[in-house]
Amino acid sequence: MVLYVVGLGLSSEKDITVRGLEAVKSCERVYLEAYTSILMVDTEKLSEFYGKEVVVADREMVESESDKILDGAQEKNVAFLVVGDPFGATTHTDLVIRAHELSIKVEIIHNASIMNAIGACGLQLYNFGQTVSMVFFTPTWRPDSFYDRIKENRDIGLHTLVLLDIKVKEQSFENMARGRKIYEPPRYMTVAQCAEQMLEIEELRGEGVYTPNTIAIGVSRIGSHDQRIVTGTLQELSEADLGPPLHSLVLLGSRVHELEVDYIRAFALNKETFEQVVALEHNKKAS
Amino acid sequence: MVLYVVGLGLSSEKDITVRGLEAVKSCERVYLEAYTSILMVDTEKLSEFYGKEVVVADREMVESESDKILDGAQEKNVAFLVVGDPFGATTHTDLVIRAHELSIKVEIIHNASIMNAIGACGLQLYNFGQTVSMVFFTPTWRPDSFYDRIKENRDIGLHTLVLLDIKVKEQSFENMARGRKIYEPPRYMTVAQCAEQMLEIEELRGEGVYTPNTIAIGVSRIGSHDQRIVTGTLQELSEADLGPPLHSLVLLGSRVHELEVDYIRAFALNKETFEQVVALEHNKKAS
Repeated sequence: MVLYVVGLGLSSEKDITVRGLEAVKSCERVYLEAYTSILMVDTEKLSEFYGKEVVVADREMVESESDKILDGAQEKNVAFLVVGDPFGATTHTDLVIRAHELSIKVEIIHNASIMNAIGACGLQLYNFGQTVSMVFFTPTWRPDSFYDRIKENRDIGLHTLVLLDIKVKEQSFENMARGRKIYEPPRYMTVAQCAEQMLEIEELRGEGVYTPNTIAIGVSRIGSHDQRIVTGTLQELSEADLGPPLHSLVLLGSRVHELEVDYIRAFALNKETFEQVVALEHNKKAS
Repeated sequence: MVLYVVGLGLSSEKDITVRGLEAVKSCERVYLEAYTSILMVDTEKLSEFYGKEVVVADREMVESESDKILDGAQEKNVAFLVVGDPFGATTHTDLVIRAHELSIKVEIIHNASIMNAIGACGLQLYNFGQTVSMVFFTPTWRPDSFYDRIKENRDIGLHTLVLLDIKVKEQSFENMARGRKIYEPPRYMTVAQCAEQMLEIEELRGEGVYTPNTIAIGVSRIGSHDQRIVTGTLQELSEADLGPPLHSLVLLGSRVHELEVDYIRAFALNKETFEQVVALEHNKKAS
């Protein structure tokens, strides 16, 4: 019948759309993609809300056992649930292509994702350049290609949304080597860690793409009742605590509208440094 | 109590989230913002679905009578419905700021918008640069600033989402001059008109930002059951008919991943020209 690829939105079980909920209720099997993002709600709560068992699909399952997910979808409806919008990660286009090959009808049910909900910080979405990702640095792996992308955006005055790493179902080196399926607790990058890594790379590369005084906006749990939005310099944000995950960061571009400045000012960690930096970096108050 | 600013998503009355629907049902008054975008459903159908009267708020009302919308929201819930996500257009940040001034609690309920649902065309959202708008040209007004923005995106290899003009509640010059509140029928720009205007400006400016052979993707009614996605050269798209509104266009950037090419190939109007252009412009098949 149909493979429904359903976006769940950002936060609670009730962020699914009415159409999405009807689709899920019509399904024989329900899978939840749970490795590129997380919903701020337990799988049990989802099951209860849908009146259906929800099978958590990890990366391995989605990438190597897609036929198992699609099994029988020619006769019965199957739902594949994705946090945010279905088209956030490449993997799901793979599943869609595979379904087409098996002559299974696919219906996409869209929802909010961080890519559009980030507008909640008050910056205009059409002033954003490309989105970049920030991974957890390790002693031996500190990829800095995000720096080049941010440079490209800032050279033309645009804001940059930085998506922060999450690590779920990670194995320690030892457990992996011994083939033990024991997983580390999940880790979610914070705004502070992101700001710190950004400053470290600026220090190393020294191309002046941004400075410790560049204004950024940290957001956490966007779309939930306890979402937080804070504006500060990268230095300030590297010491800020935005509470539980998920976090994201936006680096302000120079082509910023006065209305945008007014809106993010309300979230300033420190009104004084905010005014100083805006005056300097964005020439809003030429004296 | 609360001003709920509720995103309605892209297409039908059932694209509202469960949380959004519960919020609307709790409201004393319900307004629908109806000038920056349109839902593909009648206001009457919305009213029926909510069990509430829905007042259509035009630009004049939202911009100059926001206090009327907010009237009494200290005691009773009020809903302000926005097609797509609430943070698509500046005007709503104005309403939110005004509500804060009046000490009215504001709750934003996010949803899908074209800004993230455009991922349905198969291109990765993080490879998009800034979004541009295309307005209907008139004999005396043919604004070409979109050309500079697209140039900036293409210089760094990024895709560009082009949002197309809609004209609702337009008055003819004569009716306006005579103060007659008679409005022209609504107009929605098509992918073909957009491609044509883009080619006209390239012809005029001649900076080679794109050519009649540049690959673009036209989409219409994204998120609905009869959505269409077609890939073609700008020349081909300038002659394509994508049916009823709303339409949008994506201009392909050079930093395109092979998986993206595979995905959009499936929508090609003409497989032969598609392969030729991809081979030439994107060096996918160096011979």
